[in-house]
This record gives sequence, structure tokens and C-alpha cells, in this order.
Amino acid sequence: MASVIWDKDGAAVDARVQRFLAGDDVVLDRELFAFDLTASRAHVRGLGRIEVLSKGEVDALVRELDALGDAFATGAFVLDARHEDGHSAIEAHLVERLGEAGKKVHTGRSRNDQVLVALRLYLKDACARLEARDAACARALLDRADADANTPMPGYTHLQRAVPSSIGHWLAGVAEAFLDDRDLARATLSWLDASPLGTAAGYGVNLPLDREGVARELGFSRLVVNPACAQNGRGKVEIQVLTALLQALLDVRRFAWDLSLYTTAEFGFVALPAELTTGSSIMPNKRNPDVVELLRASPAVVQGALVEIESVLSLPGGYQRDLQATKAPTLRAIDRGLAALELTEVVVRQMDLDRARMEAAIDAEMFATDRAVELALEGVPFRTAYRRVADELGSLASRTPAASLAARVSPGAPGNLMLETLRARLEG
Amino acid sequence: MASVIWDKDGAAVDARVQRFLAGDDVVLDRELFAFDLTASRAHVRGLGRIEVLSKGEVDALVRELDALGDAFATGAFVLDARHEDGHSAIEAHLVERLGEAGKKVHTGRSRNDQVLVALRLYLKDACARLEARDAACARALLDRADADANTPMPGYTHLQRAVPSSIGHWLAGVAEAFLDDRDLARATLSWLDASPLGTAAGYGVNLPLDREGVARELGFSRLVVNPACAQNGRGKVEIQVLTALLQALLDVRRFAWDLSLYTTAEFGFVALPAELTTGSSIMPNKRNPDVVELLRASPAVVQGALVEIESVLSLPGGYQRDLQATKAPTLRAIDRGLAALELTEVVVRQMDLDRARMEAAIDAEMFATDRAVELALEGVPFRTAYRRVADELGSLASRTPAASLAARVSPGAPGNLMLETLRARLEG
Amino acid sequence: MASVIWDKDGAAVDARVQRFLAGDDVVLDRELFAFDLTASRAHVRGLGRIEVLSKGEVDALVRELDALGDAFATGAFVLDARHEDGHSAIEAHLVERLGEAGKKVHTGRSRNDQVLVALRLYLKDACARLEARDAACARALLDRADADANTPMPGYTHLQRAVPSSIGHWLAGVAEAFLDDRDLARATLSWLDASPLGTAAGYGVNLPLDREGVARELGFSRLVVNPACAQNGRGKVEIQVLTALLQALLDVRRFAWDLSLYTTAEFGFVALPAELTTGSSIMPNKRNPDVVELLRASPAVVQGALVEIESVLSLPGGYQRDLQATKAPTLRAIDRGLAALELTEVVVRQMDLDRARMEAAIDAEMFATDRAVELALEGVPFRTAYRRVADELGSLASRTPAASLAARVSPGAPGNLMLETLRARLEG
Amino acid sequence: MASVIWDKDGAAVDARVQRFLAGDDVVLDRELFAFDLTASRAHVRGLGRIEVLSKGEVDALVRELDALGDAFATGAFVLDARHEDGHSAIEAHLVERLGEAGKKVHTGRSRNDQVLVALRLYLKDACARLEARDAACARALLDRADADANTPMPGYTHLQRAVPSSIGHWLAGVAEAFLDDRDLARATLSWLDASPLGTAAGYGVNLPLDREGVARELGFSRLVVNPACAQNGRGKVEIQVLTALLQALLDVRRFAWDLSLYTTAEFGFVALPAELTTGSSIMPNKRNPDVVELLRASPAVVQGALVEIESVLSLPGGYQRDLQATKAPTLRAIDRGLAALELTEVVVRQMDLDRARMEAAIDAEMFATDRAVELALEGVPFRTAYRRVADELGSLASRTPAASLAARVSPGAPGNLMLETLRARLEG
Repeated sequence: MASVIWDKDGAAVDARVQRFLAGDDVVLDRELFAFDLTASRAHVRGLGRIEVLSKGEVDALVRELDALGDAFATGAFVLDARHEDGHSAIEAHLVERLGEAGKKVHTGRSRNDQVLVALRLYLKDACARLEARDAACARALLDRADADANTPMPGYTHLQRAVPSSIGHWLAGVAEAFLDDRDLARATLSWLDASPLGTAAGYGVNLPLDREGVARELGFSRLVVNPACAQNGRGKVEIQVLTALLQALLDVRRFAWDLSLYTTAEFGFVALPAELTTGSSIMPNKRNPDVVELLRASPAVVQGALVEIESVLSLPGGYQRDLQATKAPTLRAIDRGLAALELTEVVVRQMDLDRARMEAAIDAEMFATDRAVELALEGVPFRTAYRRVADELGSLASRTPAASLAARVSPGAPGNLMLETLRARLEG
Repeated sequence: MASVIWDKDGAAVDARVQRFLAGDDVVLDRELFAFDLTASRAHVRGLGRIEVLSKGEVDALVRELDALGDAFATGAFVLDARHEDGHSAIEAHLVERLGEAGKKVHTGRSRNDQVLVALRLYLKDACARLEARDAACARALLDRADADANTPMPGYTHLQRAVPSSIGHWLAGVAEAFLDDRDLARATLSWLDASPLGTAAGYGVNLPLDREGVARELGFSRLVVNPACAQNGRGKVEIQVLTALLQALLDVRRFAWDLSLYTTAEFGFVALPAELTTGSSIMPNKRNPDVVELLRASPAVVQGALVEIESVLSLPGGYQRDLQATKAPTLRAIDRGLAALELTEVVVRQMDLDRARMEAAIDAEMFATDRAVELALEGVPFRTAYRRVADELGSLASRTPAASLAARVSPGAPGNLMLETLRARLEG
Repeated sequence: MASVIWDKDGAAVDARVQRFLAGDDVVLDRELFAFDLTASRAHVRGLGRIEVLSKGEVDALVRELDALGDAFATGAFVLDARHEDGHSAIEAHLVERLGEAGKKVHTGRSRNDQVLVALRLYLKDACARLEARDAACARALLDRADADANTPMPGYTHLQRAVPSSIGHWLAGVAEAFLDDRDLARATLSWLDASPLGTAAGYGVNLPLDREGVARELGFSRLVVNPACAQNGRGKVEIQVLTALLQALLDVRRFAWDLSLYTTAEFGFVALPAELTTGSSIMPNKRNPDVVELLRASPAVVQGALVEIESVLSLPGGYQRDLQATKAPTLRAIDRGLAALELTEVVVRQMDLDRARMEAAIDAEMFATDRAVELALEGVPFRTAYRRVADELGSLASRTPAASLAARVSPGAPGNLMLETLRARLEG
Repeated sequence: MASVIWDKDGAAVDARVQRFLAGDDVVLDRELFAFDLTASRAHVRGLGRIEVLSKGEVDALVRELDALGDAFATGAFVLDARHEDGHSAIEAHLVERLGEAGKKVHTGRSRNDQVLVALRLYLKDACARLEARDAACARALLDRADADANTPMPGYTHLQRAVPSSIGHWLAGVAEAFLDDRDLARATLSWLDASPLGTAAGYGVNLPLDREGVARELGFSRLVVNPACAQNGRGKVEIQVLTALLQALLDVRRFAWDLSLYTTAEFGFVALPAELTTGSSIMPNKRNPDVVELLRASPAVVQGALVEIESVLSLPGGYQRDLQATKAPTLRAIDRGLAALELTEVVVRQMDLDRARMEAAIDAEMFATDRAVELALEGVPFRTAYRRVADELGSLASRTPAASLAARVSPGAPGNLMLETLRARLEG
């Protein structure tokens, strides 16, 4: 590793320590690097506005930051173990290119607030991507719910056949859950949309930094006012974003569970096209729905990451190196989680439905609740009706799924799916 | 246990099974009972509007529900192991009091949506209480920050003395964190403010239920449209509320950690009044800050509850009894978490600060960053200034904390705390 | 609450604080009370051996401890909110009954080591109960495996039909898992079988306590030597016991999942007797396997408890009140977990198997692997055989499950179940 | 990616799916590859013994497996995204090198049991490394405890000064904890020391595999008998190993917390040599104990991994692809956890102790417990003595730490550290 920016006296750090300290930090920083450059540009322009840097210095620094961004994007510049971290790499590069001007970039800022602002920008971007993915899942599900709005299938509780339902009802229910998740992603982005830049090491700095102007340039809607609050929020914003992601993945998992059951030979309601299945190394007869199973497993990485982050946060105030350990689980969870959502949409759009087997699985006893309610409408107290129907389940054989669905008119029910309401919310 | 409402054929449930099934359900339901009664009244009135119940039946049922609420509040009615759960207890009571009319209360609803709506009402109330507690903590902290806005104390990073800070800066930082938590409680309440009532067992019902009207009466701002979505949201809303609670408790923990250090003999910055300490059974010389330690431990119950709930949710769609296992951790976490927030405010208001020891702990080297920035303003590149100051730390002895704080004018820093901004946000 | 044992100067503790501090501690202590009495007797006898107490004092104290144990067992003495905790209650009772002699019971010990020893005794007992429950599950499963050793059923991977299996193979597999769990419970008991008594507040005491003799009397096989280690082990032993419990419950969950699928109408392999099912409040046609679902949910409470305990343990050395927060999750998890294991045995013994539906679910393609291996034995390279069989799956129709099972002779496979080996391990 | 081994009909898998399925699997498999080769050799020799392979085939396959191992070790063979996973890579390589003989290697085995056996071998190795690391930490701590066996330092409870202690007492306590961890690593290795090889896809195979012989060759002490049990144990063994690792890291964390406090300016008991500290990017005056803070954070990755694994395991029996998601957290946790233990030993051996500041921090009130016990020996009931001493804390000023330590003779206490007992256990 090159010499570190905080080197004062040439004392070498124990190599084992350096390896352990570094961890995968510099590799993780690749995800944050572009955001760090963006924030560095804003910081430099802010220093220009308060005349800590001259116009010439600002222009030179911004130009080199742009060039570094290009080099990073094309692969000409690689962030690797030669650098202590991405934040130090930027300063080292500017010093190498610009000499004295480069040595001025860190005026009034700390690596701490550099990390914080890069992470906030990254997390805002992650929320926006999450919002888009949630919406895409909802859209795909609503499209398929529309297409089979009245196609009968069994409705289950306790995995036992309960009452007739429809494909439209099943998929609209999953779609609405993703709309909730979408709203949560939005609310989360809004909640964390505050700039920590300009808080230095958590105690501010003896410069009249234009924090508001810098925040505006970076697209933040407000400031984290107090520098200690900015530091102590490390991990908290990550938890909130990962929770919004987890909520979506809990819906992915539940839907994947449905598919895992429905693709069994015993249910046989859903088939996956060959491109979405894999084979066995030993059993010539197998086509396996691995993709569904990995979707089902997808919340695990986020659940683990949340516990990992929370564990680290048991600390007094002020920056402590422990907090760096929140970075890896955050990036890992967001990367895997968003990929799972991308794939969910693919599966929704490509799965094949066996409508005949679905309808065939509706047996006559499932009309019992309809009948009990009909008796209630005729004036039989519901609890009495319930017991009476339980005694004459055999009398329900002539009923049809279609009639049952059509009569189920309570708002949102199969006979009144309110798909247009959900669609309007999606587009809202 | 009395006979169960679903009894059809007199088959007895194995006693061991019944005990295991019941768990503490009926005791937990005490927290939900009032909400269940409120929702039952709205359901009954809704049935009246669609003429499933006569006006007389509605009036009788509402009157008995009111009476039951009063009896529960005074202790005249006790919910205990004689009842399968709180939901069944209501129907049983109405049948006992009203006969046929009582047997009609369950028309068009399921215990499932009864649970769901009672839980939503409970969780909305919990969010509102959380919001109030967060605000109370922020207010207490801002009051004390105001009172000691410019009183010096050391600022730490890595628990090492870093730069001079102030009591105002320390406490305003914690206050701002609670404002973030407050906003999260608000956003969470808004997110889950949707009525699940009228979704029956997850597939709706063959009645034109006035779900919108019922939701309005209960104070919900919208419907969970799809009945399957209502069922499958079980646990998800709980997770979101507990996460908002956890965020506040993470700030409680961090602040408790500060106090735990600051009340040591070695730091000696804070003392607790005798009413907030306890003694030892063996050591005559001890006064212990147990209350601070239990505050520090307070996130644990919420973290555990989140994992407990998430574990349960790995399920296909549709109600399954596993979901009942989300109730105990939810109630436990909210009860303990809100109590911890209540106590936090007490500690903030009552702690004693040793201003002299705080100021005495600021040593001269802590002015080094100020000096490096001053050199930067004189044109020395910051990185060069940093190294130069590192070599002459001895030269800083004549500086004073007060001057350092006054010069730290970046927005939010000790010299520019922006307390009025935080206060305005609190009252906003 | 009565006055506390550490009261020195009459300073009252704030009532809110006292309520928060107490939590459910005194109620939880009911589980530990008998163990605390046992340990107190041993402590008293040990003080007698080093002549800190006279023979008369020892006799009187032991007699009163016995009497208190009887009173507690019969309900004549109730541990409740009048006492700060169970440990203090014992001393208060002895002082009330014996005066000066009672005031001597705490010589050379602290509440801290009183808690530690009571918890160790409780946890040893919990391990022993866990071991017995694990063995009982294994026994019930082996009994049923024996009874249907060669009854065919489908073997699944990815929930897809894979190769023919047998009921014996299915249940013997679950039984062996419980044998692993049983061994883990044993190893855990052995690991924690060390006495912390005599370590006072974590720094020992200026008395030549007969720790070895006391440990022997209490049935411990060794000492926790270092007093600080005894204190710092709080939570660690709990984690280990809960992990052993979790391992068993993970097997309960997997088996409950099997049953949840197998009791669907679509699989139809297993039926539960009416005593093990419940009904619906709205659907007259339902019988639900709630008991299976609650078994499936049973690991959640332990998983949550583990995270709750681990969260608390982020602390410097020495007793801190946070550690008290490990007690509730420990007791809660053990209570619910052992109950789930008790019920698992009931379900295993009472479930009904539909052998005809199981065999009917074996379709001809499931013989493909057998055929590929046969070709390999004839000299066709396995990978070539695999592809050839994949192309002629239609040729397998004449095969029978019985022949497939009989030929599957690799050790442990359906044709060679090695039940006697598992049985021998169970009894070993 | 090259064609997959289960390719039967040339159906392409969707590229997005393939990327998602692969995850980092093939990279993770690098850790397992050598173990997979070892197990493959044993499998091949076993097939030779039952005459499924000829002697010539066995020799050729073993030779190529050896060569592949060498090529992998030297970097001549790189496992990367061209391969579906490490298991398939081996077969592909053998086919490429040996043609027909290569196509025979998979006779009687599945990738499933290949994964299982490689993981068991890897986990056994991890347990052995953990055992060695635990012992090394214990040894380093005992060495330093020996060197300062009687050097006074304050003993704390609730972070409040409690009674005099010694460096020897502090460090011996941590050492004993690592001995407990060491024993746990041993017991865990023994518990999981069973061969899953020869269980195919979870249902055995129609070959008289010599499972016992293969297990012996691989160094296993017994078989996992039942093939379904072998499959269903996936994740369970990982949990047990990670828990043993976590237990050690909980002791690392507690010790790191001690150091984090003791290296503050306020305590000043411990200093780290410059090679174990780092600097600040903005504050010229800082040397930070980052290494201590990362050690403190080290349990987090294991805690997260445990939750991640447990989340995945909510499944019915039989292999499912979800289980693959247990691999990444397992390898990640073991890698980081063992590195933290390695560094802990370094810190223990290199930390500097400020004995003068430690002794100076013992104030006179800390002798109060000694005095109360002395009064008890004189016949004053302990509770009375306790109150009397509380009233005359001022009378303790003439006492010395040395005398207090010497008198603290209860087994394990500072006056009777029993270091030789701990040393004997370490070497046992």
C-alpha cells in the first residue's frame, strides 16, 4: 500500500493489522467511488464560494475529478489494495496530478464526512432503484392479474382448501403488497434525504462552509444539521434502507413459496419455461425450479445484514472504526436484493399457468362459506348457519366456481377486484 | 376452556395441544381487546348500513359492546384462559347477552380480519405514542442543550480526545437524532394507515360490505384493497413499527453508552441523582447506574422481536397459524421500548453535569485541527499544514476552549448550533 | 416493594425507575427459585466448613431454606413484586425468621454469583430435559420407521419428484437428526457443568471459601476458576443452551414443513386425528393443522432470544445490569422450545399415513437414476448413461417401487436402512 | 459458461437467471476445492473396491485429481465463472483429460453429497484452526497474567470502581474464557465428525458403496447413516461451527471493550504501540486504536451469518437450492472470525500497561467489602457489617491494594489465582 494520508512520522503499521483493517474496504469503495467524486466536486465548489480555493484551483480540481471519474468508468483507473480506501485515493490522485492544489482538497472536511456523503448518495440511489423494481414487479403482476381476472383457482388457508379464489385475486394481492413496498422505498428516500457533508469529524470546522449550497448542488432536500448527529446516524440510515428492501423481499419470498408449491407435481398449477429451470447431476428425470428457490432465500442476506449492522452500533457517540463494518453488509444486501427483484419480474412474466388443473382443484365443500352467508342473509344467525352448513356439506355439489367468484362482491374480493384502483395507485 | 366458536361436532382437542396452541394468546389479547371492540362496533354499524342487521340489532350489539368495554376497563370482565382468544370472547359474550342477535355479529367477517384490524389500530396507536415519546426526548435534550449551549467539553472520536466540543453540541446532536426518529414514527403510521376490515378469511365475502365507510369510522385513511394482501401483510406492518421503535432505541443506547462512560470515576462528567441509582448486595461503597444500563440494553428486546417475527414469515400465501406467533414479540417489544423512551426523558432532565471536569478534560493538543485550518486559510495547502501542526503540537497551549468553540462556525458546529432550526422542526 | 437489601441511607428510588428496573424479574425468578435455595443451602454448609457459621447457624439456615422451598412449592410463599428479586427474597425471609443468623447468609457471596449459580443449575436441568425430549422424538420416529420400513413413498428434491423412497427412510432420517440434537444437548451440559459459586462480585473475597466442596455438593464436575470469567460468562452459557435447543427445533420445523405439505389435499399423504386439528370461525368446511403450524413457528422464539441475548453482551468486563436482560429471553425460549418438542412426539405417534396415496405418487420417471446406475454397472460411463436415460424416460414404466427400494443398498439407503444402528445409538 | 453437466437437450438457461444462480458460488468454491478433490479421490478408490471402476481407471482418476490439485495450488488452474461450480469443474476436467474414465467419476454420487462432504471437511478444518487460535489467545493471556500476577488495578462493576483487582486477575479471567471456547471448538469438531459421502441425492443409490471405508480414508470417525439426514443437516453443522466461533469472538469483543476504555486518556491504563494504531485525515493530533475497534466489531459478521443461515433453513426435507445460500455466510464468517482471533493474540502480546496509573485508580472506598467481611469474621452479621461500613467509608484510607489482594484467597481470586490450574488445562 502507498503511504497513508495521515502519515506524520513514518511509523509503519503492522502488516497483519493493515490487512485486517483494510478488509475488503477498498473493493467495496468501488461502489461508492463515483458518489465520492460527485461529492468532492461539490465540496471543492463550496470552498470556492467561501474563497478558500481560488477559481483556478476549483477549476483544476473539478477537471481532475471529472477525469478521474472517466478513468474509473473506463477501467483506466482501478481502485485496489494500493490505496488505503477510495477516499484517500482521490486526494492522492489530485496531489499527484496537481501538486499543491491537490493538497488543498481536504480543507474543511474529514474522511468521515466524505464517507457519510458518499453513502447517503449511494443509499438514495439504491432507494430509487428499489422503488423502480417494486413498481416493475407490481406492474407485471397487475398485467397478469388483468389477463386472468376471473380464472378460478382454489383459495387456501393453513394450506388447506378454503374457498374458491381466482388467479386475478392471487396476483392482485401480491401486486398490492409491492405497491406498499414501493411507497416504503419512497418514504425511506425522503427520510434520509439530508446532507451530512460539511460536518468534518463530527464537530464541525472553523470555516463558514456553505453547507446549504453544497447540499443543493448534490440534490439533497435538507441538511443533517448537527455534526455529531451526522456521525451517529451511520448505520441507522442503512438499517432503514435495508428494511425497505427486506419488506419487498418478504413479498418475493412469499410469492416464491406459492410458486414452489404450485410447481410440484401434486399441485401442478404453474410450470416454468425450460430457461428458468436447471437439471440434476445424477437424476436424468429432473427439471428443478432453482430460480424460485433462490428467490425464496433472498431475504436471508438482508436479514443477516441487518443483524450484522445492528450488532456494530452498540457504541458511545463519535466516530469509531467499528462503524466501517456496516459497509460490507449494506452493499452486499442491496446488490443481492435488487437482483432478486429484477428476477422476480422475469418469473412473473414468464411463468405458465395450468388453468384447468387450478379449477379442478376446487372441490364442492369450498362453497360452504358462501352458503352460510346466504343463510345469514335469509335471517339465520350466522353462527347457526355455520353449524347447519357444516352438517350438510354434501349439498354443495351443484355450485360453480364462476358463480361463487361473481357473488364475492365485497370490495377487493374476486367479484370486485378493484384492479383499476391498484393500477391508479401504481401510476400515482 | 369454554367450547370454541368453531365447534361443529363436539370433537375435543387434545389438552396438551390446546395449551400449546393457546400460549399466552388470551393474555396478549388484553392489549388488543379495546381495539377489537371498537372495530366490532364499526363492523356492526356497517352491517346495518347494508341491511344485514336491523337497526334494533345494531343498537343492541353496539350497546353490549360498549358495556363489555366498560366491564373490561373496570376489571369486571376479565379475559383469561376460559376464552380461546379475545376475538371469540366477544362473540361468546354477545351470544350470552343477546342470543340470536349475538350469533349474527360474525356475519361477513373472520377472526382473521378481526385480528388484523385490531392489530392495525393497536399499531397506529403505538406509532402515535412513539412519535410523542421521540418528541419528548428531543424536547428535553434541546432544553438542556440550550441551557449549556456554550459549555465546553471534549469531543471524542475513537473514544480518544479529538477536538473541543460543547454540551450544547453533544445534546443537540442526540436531540436531532430523536427528531429523525419522530419523523420515522410519523411516516410509519401513515404507511400502515389502511383498513383490513372486511377481507374475511383472505378471499372476501358474498356481501356488499361497506368497507370504505367502516374504515372511515375507524379513522383509517384508506383500504387494504385486496383481501389476500391484507392477510399476507401480517408481520410486515409489525416489522415496520418495530423498526421505527428500534431506531429510537438505538439512539437511546448510544446516549446511554455516553452516560455509562461519563458516570465513571475516570471521566466524571455526569452524576445521577440517588433516585436513579441502586446499590450492591455485597459492596457497601457502591451506587450503580443500573437505569442507564437497562436503557443501553433496551434495543435488544426489539432486535430479538424483529428476528422472531421475520423467522415466522417464511410461508406461502394465505393465513397460517404460524402468524399468530408474531403477536407476542410485537407486544413485548412495544411495551418495553416505549417504557425505555419514557425513562430516557427522565434521565435527560435529571442528570447532573460536572462542567468543571468536562472543561478540564480538554487538553491543548485538541486545538491542532483548528490550527491546521487556520494555516490553510493563510494559503498553506491543508495536507502540508496538517503535517506541520503534527510536528508542533506543543505550540497550542495558549488556546482556550471558548475561542475554539466560537470559531467553529460551519453550520451546526459548536459556534453555530442552529438550535432554533432544530426547535422549529420539533414544533413542526 | 419492601426495602431493598442494599439500602444504606433510606434514599428512595424513583418509582418509574423501580418499575423499569424490575421488569418481570421477580416473576422470572420463580423458575430459578428452587435452584437458588439449593445453592444457598450449599453455600451455608460451605461457610460452616470454614467456620464462618456455627453448626447451629448452619442447621437453622438450612432448615429455614428447606421450609421456604416447601412453602414455595405448595404456594404458601409467593414470589412477587413485593420482593426486589428472588435472591433478595431469600435473605429477607431468613432475616425475618432467624434474625441475626439470617443476616449472615450473604457472607462471602454476592447476588451476582447467586444468580450465576442458580442459572447454571437451571440450565443444566434444561439441558437434561432437552436431551430427554430429543431422545423421545427419536424413539417415536424410529418406532414408526420400523413399522413402515419398506412402505414406498416419493422422494423429493426441490419439492420435485426425484426417486422412490420409503416411509422408513423418511422417518429414520428425522430420527437420526434428533439423535444428533440429543448428543449436542449432552455435550452442552458437559461444557457448562462448572460452578460459579464463590466468586462474589467477580473479584473473589477475603475468605478461604470451600468452593470445591460446594461445587461437589451441587453436582458440578468442576469450578469456573476465575471470578471475572464467571461474571463474563453470563449470556455465553445461555447462548450455548439455546443453540442446542434451536438445533432440535430446526428439525421440528423441517418435519412440520413436511407434514404441512403432506396434509394438503394435493399431497394427501398424512392426516391428523381430529384432536390435533382446529376449525375456522367463518368457514364451516375447515379442519386446520394449527398444531403443525405452531411447531413450524417454534424456532422463531429461540432465534429471537439468541439475537436478544447477543445484543446485550456488547460490554466491557465486569457485571453490568444489562446482563439481567438475558434472563427473560432464556427462560421464554426454553419454556416454549421444550413444549414444542413434547408436542412433536405426540404428533409423530398420532399422525395417520395414507400409504396408498404415497405409493400412487411415485411415477415411472423416478426410476431413471436406478437405470442410469445399472447402465454404469454394465460399463457405460455414468455421464453417457445419464444422457441416454434422459432420452428414454418412457421405458421405465414396468418398474416397481418395491424393487427400486430393495436394490438401493448403499448404507443407510431405503434398501439398507440400518435402523438397528440408529436404535443402538439411541440407547447408547 | 461452459455447458453444464446436467445438459440433456441443449436448452439454454436465461443469462440473467444463470448470473443470479451462480452468485459468487464458483469463487466461494475455491475454499472448498481442495477438500472436494480429496473426497473425490476417496470416492474413486471406494468405487474401485466395489469393482465399479477398474484398477487402471482408479489410478488414472486419482493421478488426474492429484494433478488438478497441484495445478490449483500453483494457480495454473483457476476456478472461475467458466465453471458452473467447483464440483462440476472436477468432472469436466477429468472428462477432458481422460475421456470415458472421466465420465465415470460421478457414478453413485451426486453433487449434493459432494458439496456435503467438502463442507464437512472444510468445517472440521475450521474447527481445528479455531481450537488452535483459542488456545493461542489463552496462552498469550496467561503469559501476561503470570508476568503481572500481583500488579494492582481497579476492579469494576457497572463500570464503577468496586474492589481492588490485579492485572493477573483480569487477564487470567479472559484466558479462562478462551479455554472454554477452545473446549467448545473441540466438542463441535467431534460432534460433526461424520461422513455424508455416499448418500447421493438424499436417497442413496443402487450400489453397495463402501461408505465406511471411504469415511475412514477421509478421517471421519463415523457415518451420517441416513441419506435424508445428511441432506437435512445442511446448515445445522454450519450453525454449530459458527456458534463456537461466535463464543470466542464474544470474548474478543469484551476484551476489546476493556482495551477501548483503558486506552482512553481518562483511564490511561493501556497504550498500543504505534504499529497498532492509525491516524486521522483531518486531526493532526490523533493516534487511534482502530485495531481494537475492529476486534470489537468482529462478532457482527458471525451474528449476521447465523441469522442468514437460519433464515434459509425454513424448508421441507430434501435438497433445495435455497441451501446453497448457506455457503457464503459460512465462509465469510469463518474467514473474518479467525483473522480477528489471530490479531487478538498480537494485541495481547504487544499492548503496554501503565501500572502506575492502574494502581493510582484504586481509591480507599474500594476496601469497603474487605472490611465488611472482616467484621463478619469477628461475628458481626454480614448485613449489619455492610451497613456499618457504608457509614464509615472514610476509615479505610490506610489500607493498601497489595494487602487487599493478598487477603483475597477464595479459589480463583487475586490472592489465589490458580494460574497453574489454568495452565494445566491449556496444555490438556
